[in-house]
Amino acid sequence: MRQIHISSYRPAGFAEKYQRLVADTVIPYQYDILRDAVPGAEESHAIKNFINAGRALRGEDTGDGFRGMVFQDSDAAKWLEAAAYSLAVFPSDELEREADAFIDVIAAAQDEDGYLDTRFTIKDREKRWTDLLEAHELYCMGHMMEAAAAYFEATGKRKLLDVMTKCALHIYRHFVEEGRDGYSGHPEVELALVRMYRATEERKLLELAKHFVDVRGREPYYFEREARERDWEVWGNDASDREYQQSHAPVREQQDAVGHAVRAMYLYSGMADVAAETGDAELSAACRRLWESVTQKRMYVTGGVGSTVHGEAFTVDYDLPSDTAYAETCASVGLIFFAMRMLEREHDGEYADVMERAFYNTVLAGMSLDGKRFFYVNPLECVPGISGAAATERHVLCERPGWFACACCPPNAARLIASLGKYAYGETHDTAFCNMFLAGEVEFANGVSLECSTGYPYGFEVRYDVRSGGRIAVRIPGWSRNKFTVELNGQEYVCEPEKGYVYIDAEDGDRITVTLDDAPRYVYASPKVPALSGKIAVERGPLVYCFEGADNGGDVLSLSLRRGGRLRAEKFDPNMLGGTAVISAEALRTADPGALYTSEEPERTPVTARAVPYYTWANRGVNQMRVWMPAE
Amino acid sequence: MRQIHISSYRPAGFAEKYQRLVADTVIPYQYDILRDAVPGAEESHAIKNFINAGRALRGEDTGDGFRGMVFQDSDAAKWLEAAAYSLAVFPSDELEREADAFIDVIAAAQDEDGYLDTRFTIKDREKRWTDLLEAHELYCMGHMMEAAAAYFEATGKRKLLDVMTKCALHIYRHFVEEGRDGYSGHPEVELALVRMYRATEERKLLELAKHFVDVRGREPYYFEREARERDWEVWGNDASDREYQQSHAPVREQQDAVGHAVRAMYLYSGMADVAAETGDAELSAACRRLWESVTQKRMYVTGGVGSTVHGEAFTVDYDLPSDTAYAETCASVGLIFFAMRMLEREHDGEYADVMERAFYNTVLAGMSLDGKRFFYVNPLECVPGISGAAATERHVLCERPGWFACACCPPNAARLIASLGKYAYGETHDTAFCNMFLAGEVEFANGVSLECSTGYPYGFEVRYDVRSGGRIAVRIPGWSRNKFTVELNGQEYVCEPEKGYVYIDAEDGDRITVTLDDAPRYVYASPKVPALSGKIAVERGPLVYCFEGADNGGDVLSLSLRRGGRLRAEKFDPNMLGGTAVISAEALRTADPGALYTSEEPERTPVTARAVPYYTWANRGVNQMRVWMPAE
Repeated sequence: MRQIHISSYRPAGFAEKYQRLVADTVIPYQYDILRDAVPGAEESHAIKNFINAGRALRGEDTGDGFRGMVFQDSDAAKWLEAAAYSLAVFPSDELEREADAFIDVIAAAQDEDGYLDTRFTIKDREKRWTDLLEAHELYCMGHMMEAAAAYFEATGKRKLLDVMTKCALHIYRHFVEEGRDGYSGHPEVELALVRMYRATEERKLLELAKHFVDVRGREPYYFEREARERDWEVWGNDASDREYQQSHAPVREQQDAVGHAVRAMYLYSGMADVAAETGDAELSAACRRLWESVTQKRMYVTGGVGSTVHGEAFTVDYDLPSDTAYAETCASVGLIFFAMRMLEREHDGEYADVMERAFYNTVLAGMSLDGKRFFYVNPLECVPGISGAAATERHVLCERPGWFACACCPPNAARLIASLGKYAYGETHDTAFCNMFLAGEVEFANGVSLECSTGYPYGFEVRYDVRSGGRIAVRIPGWSRNKFTVELNGQEYVCEPEKGYVYIDAEDGDRITVTLDDAPRYVYASPKVPALSGKIAVERGPLVYCFEGADNGGDVLSLSLRRGGRLRAEKFDPNMLGGTAVISAEALRTADPGALYTSEEPERTPVTARAVPYYTWANRGVNQMRVWMPAE
Repeated sequence: MRQIHISSYRPAGFAEKYQRLVADTVIPYQYDILRDAVPGAEESHAIKNFINAGRALRGEDTGDGFRGMVFQDSDAAKWLEAAAYSLAVFPSDELEREADAFIDVIAAAQDEDGYLDTRFTIKDREKRWTDLLEAHELYCMGHMMEAAAAYFEATGKRKLLDVMTKCALHIYRHFVEEGRDGYSGHPEVELALVRMYRATEERKLLELAKHFVDVRGREPYYFEREARERDWEVWGNDASDREYQQSHAPVREQQDAVGHAVRAMYLYSGMADVAAETGDAELSAACRRLWESVTQKRMYVTGGVGSTVHGEAFTVDYDLPSDTAYAETCASVGLIFFAMRMLEREHDGEYADVMERAFYNTVLAGMSLDGKRFFYVNPLECVPGISGAAATERHVLCERPGWFACACCPPNAARLIASLGKYAYGETHDTAFCNMFLAGEVEFANGVSLECSTGYPYGFEVRYDVRSGGRIAVRIPGWSRNKFTVELNGQEYVCEPEKGYVYIDAEDGDRITVTLDDAPRYVYASPKVPALSGKIAVERGPLVYCFEGADNGGDVLSLSLRRGGRLRAEKFDPNMLGGTAVISAEALRTADPGALYTSEEPERTPVTARAVPYYTWANRGVNQMRVWMPAE
């Protein structure tokens, strides 16, 4: 039975801190960006675009017209979606008023026939649906559908849901009823349509999602024909680069995760959604195959995916360089979407392990601790002087910049963080699933309710006070499989995890206490990964650690870790990096012989190296950082 | 006193093998390429271009006109130069006849005013000297000047020398007398003019070389103005990318080796030539500064330079990735040119150490053992499946291809190998310098003559039988500074090297025996090089070794070397890889745990790893290769 997410969640602990940061800092700041109220920031024009599109529809002067990227609408949609999630955990009249007002503006920008995209409403009406490769119409509409469903779920208000249902039915008419060819260059609408279907029960929306999944990659190849038939383009992307947009083969035949990593994650998520709703075993098998390709051969230890800047894309198996990594924040957000859908399909902790890996490492690293600055690119090594400077590393920054003209990552991280409860907790009709260890109060639709108390990811005792009983599944993470205990009301509860979950039938008032392995550990990469030969990394709980210059005398490059050396987790320090626990490791410091090459073995001195969680890096100015360390 | 190279050299041993390969295989093959007589090879058209240019000058039909790269003439020039050197060591009536006939064709392609470039003689006369950024006229003429001087030195025949003197004086008129602005986007003519000056004693040629060196990088910036003033271009190179063509500052102010690596090496060589002839201390200091930048911060252990494919260029200090390396064969040829000129200026073995490093490793690796296939790009690591396939490694090949459309490297390697005696042996009026250990007979112009017998680079005893006595300087390489002996007529000759050379006053009939350190050794890189943290390499004598799959069960990635473990040089095997000595090393093989990441320490088994010289790699099909190995 598919796991669903209709629980309500009131956060506490680590999740609350991040959700508050999003509510108090990120969402307001992003709203100001969208309405061009941040002095000095690059103009967004996103809200003005909707206003101007409404004017265009009413035959009024469109003022300063459309500005920004062709996918500018999606920034607004992602903000609205994040706002919806945030309202669900922290009700705010002010935010809800802003959102309602914006929804009015959006509704006014919808064409009579249901079409909704400001770029082609303000100008170039005749170009609608003629550049599916680059014009991002289905992508933008997809994001607005997600926002609509989220806002409906959070507030019960149907206005945007109705707008986007009308929009989806317009798409249905165009592509299904009128039989026009094509599918989106940037997947997103597929998963969004399934979500809309679940909110509205309008079967045409599921049918449309399935249609887009089915026609992708079929011969004759759509994008090349489309390119031949039009006399304009957005950037001039190569229509024949089939892997870039995952259309090199029908999706059921795709073997490896390829192309633009965000597109891949969104497509695979949509495929998994369609498979879940239709019971399509072949599609389901393709999802599993692609999942294995991603997570067993093409994923960084931080949960980053897409190892090259060229096309922000997957490359080949085991090509996971630390220094030239791309590992876009959005791609890890997308990996979490994909993982959640795989987990819905099959209750296996493996999927939640990857969700945590991507969330606690790459997604959190995408944002500064104060919520004001953002990384797109999440390298596993940063060397000031080379990173950002060498020709192959121009894309790698040593510090998070503020807002980007292409602002995909910040609102993507925001909507994920704000909705984290939906990933942490899921349910079937008879079981409440605790997939991630998020402190807070949870009420499941199946009747179970509980309060989770934990200092996770820094505390490893997780307590569930069961208010309303039922069957509860608690995930035992892969890294704790060999060392954990479960207690029920203070008594050892003997159990063997089934596919990563322990199942407990709890009564009202029961207390379940799960104690996970709190020991820091070394991580070893497959010897098939050339960039990681002879290297080890350090993890504790779900956190990947890194070594920064700030904690290591400014120089990380000359450090090696002692293989088998003791790792010691220091006490949680609430004042360090927003609250963290340093890990110290036995290491050797190699003296600099001065020469570029020498045959005199350089002197090596035992030292203690100090590591901090990867998500906290680059919050103390420009300095060296390394996840994978030479080991001896 | 400047070291000069007017000795005659008859090769034996290792040098003879390579010089014969060039004479018997490379030069004839390249000649066939130039005259389009190799079925299936990409058309060169180089000789036809000269024929057609002659027709154009005589007002005849130019047939199939000009074809090939804008610098196609230089392929012919480099071949002719290589042929000249080869004739000096292996006289050949047939080759000399071919060369003479070709020189007649070249002479007929020279315009009345001295201009000689087939591209702008066959067509577009009005475009002469209007695209110094890209059109390579000065570059092609420079190469033909080098060929002219070499052919004159080898054969005493003046025809091409006179042609190129007339050409050089045409350039002098245009740029000096008529005062036209500009200098070559691709340096080469500077060093060629000094060489022509030395052959002809025409001072205007030196003056012209100095002029081009002096005006480079001055404000107002030439290339941007030139680009604005013309309405055509070759490839559309960015005229404002000043570093690419080393014109970001006047040369005397340049601090770091930057831009296209071959251009840099040729420029620095020309600068050193001008400094040597003019005694310009400031220019000399700039050469030393740039030398240090190259060799102390930006050079691979193989003597490769230019670490990125982007612009085939230098990047930043200590950015020396093994896998994405560019390290063009031509750039190492150029580094040897530069090193030789630094050595002429200052008798310091450091320069010859670099010459050997570049020659025995990158230059030789540029060519297959049979002399028929060539690498442009010389990576220090090759992993089939990733190299050539991953987006950042598309330029990296696992096997040498045949001939290229852009055929710069093969003839460049050929002319260097064919003239190796000039690098190995030099002289001042009172001293004979043995810079590299090349077996063979040498007669110096200062009266000294000797025969060198050695199995170098596989034998470490070097015997000099002095036929005609005098002061002899023998280099003691940096890697042998702590362990070497010198004997004079069987008696220990106690001496301390001065700047890397021991000086011996030898009588007729003396025998000098130098015994160098034959032990394989580990090499350590500066901890400032991020790509080499925790890694070591293996060298013996001048040879850098590498680990290939072919000798290590197909899998090099899972091997680590034991730090301090014993290295054993096996007996020279004349049947292996054209004759080589394998080095075996204590190593650990890491078992593949199957998972991409694991916290279970993978099993590691002691094994013996086998290394072969880097220059022999990729002669046994596609397989893994690694120079720098993890060490523990």
